[in-house]
Amino acid sequence: MSAIKLAFNSWPMSRNLFNYARSNVNKVKYQSTKSGGLVLIDVNDKTGYALVTLNSPPVNSLNLELLTAFSNALDEVKNNKSKGMILTSSSPTVFTAGLDINEMYKPDYARARKFWSSLQDCWLKLYGSSFPTAAAINGHSPAGGCLFAMCCEYRVMLPKYTIGLNETKLGIVAPAWFMASMKNTIPIRKAEMALTLGTLFSTEEALKLGLVDEIAKDKAEAIAKCEAFLKRYEKIPQMARGATKQLYRQQDIKELESSRGADVELFITTIKNDKIQTSLGRYIAFLKWKKRLKPLIQFVSYVTRLVKPQKKKKTTTT
Amino acid sequence: MSAIKLAFNSWPMSRNLFNYARSNVNKVKYQSTKSGGLVLIDVNDKTGYALVTLNSPPVNSLNLELLTAFSNALDEVKNNKSKGMILTSSSPTVFTAGLDINEMYKPDYARARKFWSSLQDCWLKLYGSSFPTAAAINGHSPAGGCLFAMCCEYRVMLPKYTIGLNETKLGIVAPAWFMASMKNTIPIRKAEMALTLGTLFSTEEALKLGLVDEIAKDKAEAIAKCEAFLKRYEKIPQMARGATKQLYRQQDIKELESSRGADVELFITTIKNDKIQTSLGRYIAFLKWKKRLKPLIQFVSYVTRLVKPQKKKKTTTT
Amino acid sequence: MSAIKLAFNSWPMSRNLFNYARSNVNKVKYQSTKSGGLVLIDVNDKTGYALVTLNSPPVNSLNLELLTAFSNALDEVKNNKSKGMILTSSSPTVFTAGLDINEMYKPDYARARKFWSSLQDCWLKLYGSSFPTAAAINGHSPAGGCLFAMCCEYRVMLPKYTIGLNETKLGIVAPAWFMASMKNTIPIRKAEMALTLGTLFSTEEALKLGLVDEIAKDKAEAIAKCEAFLKRYEKIPQMARGATKQLYRQQDIKELESSRGADVELFITTIKNDKIQTSLGRYIAFLKWKKRLKPLIQFVSYVTRLVKPQKKKKTTTT
Repeated sequence: MSAIKLAFNSWPMSRNLFNYARSNVNKVKYQSTKSGGLVLIDVNDKTGYALVTLNSPPVNSLNLELLTAFSNALDEVKNNKSKGMILTSSSPTVFTAGLDINEMYKPDYARARKFWSSLQDCWLKLYGSSFPTAAAINGHSPAGGCLFAMCCEYRVMLPKYTIGLNETKLGIVAPAWFMASMKNTIPIRKAEMALTLGTLFSTEEALKLGLVDEIAKDKAEAIAKCEAFLKRYEKIPQMARGATKQLYRQQDIKELESSRGADVELFITTIKNDKIQTSLGRYIAFLKWKKRLKPLIQFVSYVTRLVKPQKKKKTTTT
Repeated sequence: MSAIKLAFNSWPMSRNLFNYARSNVNKVKYQSTKSGGLVLIDVNDKTGYALVTLNSPPVNSLNLELLTAFSNALDEVKNNKSKGMILTSSSPTVFTAGLDINEMYKPDYARARKFWSSLQDCWLKLYGSSFPTAAAINGHSPAGGCLFAMCCEYRVMLPKYTIGLNETKLGIVAPAWFMASMKNTIPIRKAEMALTLGTLFSTEEALKLGLVDEIAKDKAEAIAKCEAFLKRYEKIPQMARGATKQLYRQQDIKELESSRGADVELFITTIKNDKIQTSLGRYIAFLKWKKRLKPLIQFVSYVTRLVKPQKKKKTTTT
Repeated sequence: MSAIKLAFNSWPMSRNLFNYARSNVNKVKYQSTKSGGLVLIDVNDKTGYALVTLNSPPVNSLNLELLTAFSNALDEVKNNKSKGMILTSSSPTVFTAGLDINEMYKPDYARARKFWSSLQDCWLKLYGSSFPTAAAINGHSPAGGCLFAMCCEYRVMLPKYTIGLNETKLGIVAPAWFMASMKNTIPIRKAEMALTLGTLFSTEEALKLGLVDEIAKDKAEAIAKCEAFLKRYEKIPQMARGATKQLYRQQDIKELESSRGADVELFITTIKNDKIQTSLGRYIAFLKWKKRLKPLIQFVSYVTRLVKPQKKKKTTTT
């Protein structure tokens, strides 16, 4: 199989991307296209692994378009019979910022239903994939980002970022299937506290907790470590491996599959709540304010570093 | 909110208690009333946390009256919209000694049914509470004491006491919902062994196992540590936090709710068993004998300490 | 109770065995009969523990006859009211090699159905036994061997052997009830990886993982450590202990009991699959080739040891 590059989004794929891809056959290995679709797929022809890159700048906010593109990408990886998948991001600092709050704040409800349904699609396809999956978490990974990372079978994360299901902090409740993925990853008591506190763990805390498996110094090393994980399945018959994983996760999958409609309506009811709308509104205002103040914060931070010799890291444990 | 003190029991509340409470407004903080109801509630007006004190001397044996009072107290904490609850005991050495064996030994079966049903009430309300909960375990905490402690979201325990579901040692079986609380707290394999062995863990063993979260040198420090835990939820929207906890524990709650009647009858069938009656009878005799010999044991212990310089602690591990 | 020795197999029990047993009353303690049935039972009259020895040379391949004998042995241990059971093997290097592939490769389907049903019987009786169980794993313990070991409540293993559910490596899928036993033993995430990778853990890795509880230097020490574990239940009323264990494992048991027929047919469908037949055929050929080359391998190994001073152990972690 030759190195193919496919981009999925809700619009037609750009010609440019394909040209780029063709010109780099046999040269690039997992090098993300500079422009193009919302989700990029690079299949390494030597390993047979698909590198799937979330590519919706600046922070891969999971909106309807990105989720649809990701859902399609997961189909493609399955249909191409890739031997494994590595999920990463084209952003230098964010894996994904999680669900796009704009899909929840004063939404068009028809679109909001599609949005939630496409999130279900992604979870069902990723958590229930027969092919092995690993996440190269090359930036912050809150909420939906943590969810997708936990759906994978292995997680390698870059230092000094954060990961966690922080929904309660925004006044919302992570659904039961979010919880299921976390229960499948870390000890049950730790999961309960992480969920109620909405804890965002530092990379180092996440490693200690088992929420990530390894730390890598940069994206290339993270991808290499994911490849090393996938390589462990090289001699395992694929059909048996995939069926074993699916049987292991079967109960969680079944529970969402049997309640998709109700789960969508629960989401709609939730976002119709006044208090939640107020909370989301405030958060959006905060994000805008933060963005505007960013240059000032960076300047203060710069000056502070010049003055103070070495700031001690504050660690929080759960 | 002013510091209020309420006492719940099956009898009318003593006037004395209210007087005491009023005279100490703005002075006392979590100071237990010296006399009064079976369960005391002190709400700290600064933090909004309710300190709930089991107050049935000498050892907080969970009989129908105490369970009813505790169930009512849990309603009160919920209705008062307390921001959190700390559960502790007024006894200097016992958190609670667990279910009152007298409710099971040669019982009035109508009362025994009410007794078991009120225990279910307490579990459903405490394990399924929306407000955050922490236990300041200031003494021994066997059986039902361990159950209530595990229902809380955090546990701080004083040194040199014991905690565990020791039902098998008395010839009885901890119900599935007791087991659910333990499975939600410690690793599944450890829970199985703890349950079949009826292990009573020392404070230090319990910490290692994850059955308690912290050790405190005295009751005041235990309460302070519980407050520090509750404080972590200060900035988490309460509704989302509560709903997250309830969703996380939902399956366990549902299982008891859908089988309460059958569960009561199982209890009745169990205590009707001759062998169990014999076993309980023997245990009651042992407790009486132990009580009678207490002064002698204390004297021997005193003399031994005078003679031996320092006794090495015996540790048992599971 | 006098020391009794019973042997179970699908053929009549040998007179010789009984004679041997009688002549050794009050002398032998857990000494396996030199010849006889497929499964040996030695009840220690002092402790009341039954030592159950899988005795189908050379490697205790779990075929229909051995499974039937083991199922009968489990009934016997139950009916004899043994206070506990220790499961071990008469082979010097293998606990059991797991399911006999010959029962799956080009099988008589009527026999294959009986084979799978008898495996279900063994699991239901062992995993769901009221009496306490411990495994003295005195050799390799792949697949079905690991399954039976995990059904026990405690595991003591000799060094330098391997244990694990390695089904995926052979292209087959461990059923949900195999998985249930593993989930009841080790952390949920570790179980998933162990199952999809089909990992065979070294004794030392298994100890670290919690898949075994202790390491013993030889079979006698392993049995002694199992006895010490069983002895911890000495003062626990047996009925309460057994009912607690069964209630704890109830959900897993119920799930197989309610789907035994479908589970048999799933097995039949699986082994009818061409790819799996090919895979099994290749594996059988490999085993034959390995057997033929064994003397050569041993010679090479002998020479290598003479030449190299000390070979460093390679460790794999999951």
